[in-house]
Amino acid sequence: MFITFEGPDGSGKSTIIKELHKKLIDEGYNILLTREPGGTPISEKIRDIILDNNNTNLDYRTEALLYAASRRQHLVEKIWPALKRGQIVLCDRYLDSSLAYQGGARKLGIKNILDINLFATENTYPDLTIFFDVSPEVGLSRLSQDKKRVADRLDNESENFHQEVYETFKKVCDMYPDRIVKIDASKSISEVLNETYTIIKKKLNELR
Amino acid sequence: MFITFEGPDGSGKSTIIKELHKKLIDEGYNILLTREPGGTPISEKIRDIILDNNNTNLDYRTEALLYAASRRQHLVEKIWPALKRGQIVLCDRYLDSSLAYQGGARKLGIKNILDINLFATENTYPDLTIFFDVSPEVGLSRLSQDKKRVADRLDNESENFHQEVYETFKKVCDMYPDRIVKIDASKSISEVLNETYTIIKKKLNELR
Repeated sequence: MFITFEGPDGSGKSTIIKELHKKLIDEGYNILLTREPGGTPISEKIRDIILDNNNTNLDYRTEALLYAASRRQHLVEKIWPALKRGQIVLCDRYLDSSLAYQGGARKLGIKNILDINLFATENTYPDLTIFFDVSPEVGLSRLSQDKKRVADRLDNESENFHQEVYETFKKVCDMYPDRIVKIDASKSISEVLNETYTIIKKKLNELR
Repeated sequence: MFITFEGPDGSGKSTIIKELHKKLIDEGYNILLTREPGGTPISEKIRDIILDNNNTNLDYRTEALLYAASRRQHLVEKIWPALKRGQIVLCDRYLDSSLAYQGGARKLGIKNILDINLFATENTYPDLTIFFDVSPEVGLSRLSQDKKRVADRLDNESENFHQEVYETFKKVCDMYPDRIVKIDASKSISEVLNETYTIIKKKLNELR
């Protein structure tokens, strides 16, 4: 089973995934926790180009193609082999992030970005996607409190950019009502964790 | 005016383009001679990943997306600005190479590769494309005589691969009869150069 987690920056996503991972491991599930570029050397090299603060000339379409390339390689080298071994794959961000960031906020069009990603993934959608729903105001204020975090190129975008990301995520949720479950992530971490856990356990039990 | 040159390895393409470039410069034309990745730092970094002999795990679809990304950046940083300045752009390989290599020989489908490249280029086709038509047998035997040449990852492909490249190039020629002019490149360099020169001069005069 392939489960992805999506949400704007500061949605608490990474913390919750870590906790969830522990919980499921403790219950004896065989899990791969991953995120793009996922430690595959080729994907890492691609990601270095995207996130390099010096690459100020990086065109938006180039960026979108590089994300798709990195995603492809991560899928081929890590996700597909894990699914084949029968592992449950938890992936922090996947195709929906590209739809929101490149398709929406970069204004390249959801359909265009979906097309290149369907080429990249050979139509591999997750079985389940959790969307951590939090407005950019709340998300960004959480982020600004986290001073250890080093700003990368994407974090430095304008507020308007983050608003576009959020609105496009909501559109993408509406496009895939059966796959994507929205969770109100303005609640406390423990509440969001519990809700996420319940949804995933239900899905795991369905497939038994 | 945007002119591209295509052909299998060993078609004499690079030599002829160089000579042609000299001739046109001597006549006073303002020309940009380029080839992907074209010296733009981002495209160079992308190309390094593609051509690195150590990247044996590089998936074909990842490769195709990286070529499209590199092409995009080259177009944005070099070709479009040159065309805007009124230069004639001569480009050694462009989109048709991806159709032949990735679409045909890698068996990813001409249509799939065309789609991601139309996204990458925003439908920027060349005004004229010269295809140097030479069979893989002749092309490869020419290459093997050129001992200075260091084999990169693509050169090391099997003969069958080069046959597929050639056959797909022919199909692509049939797809774009108005844009692509085929030249018999089994003839001597000077003959091929003359023919190429004549075709390009005709096109330049048409547009005056």
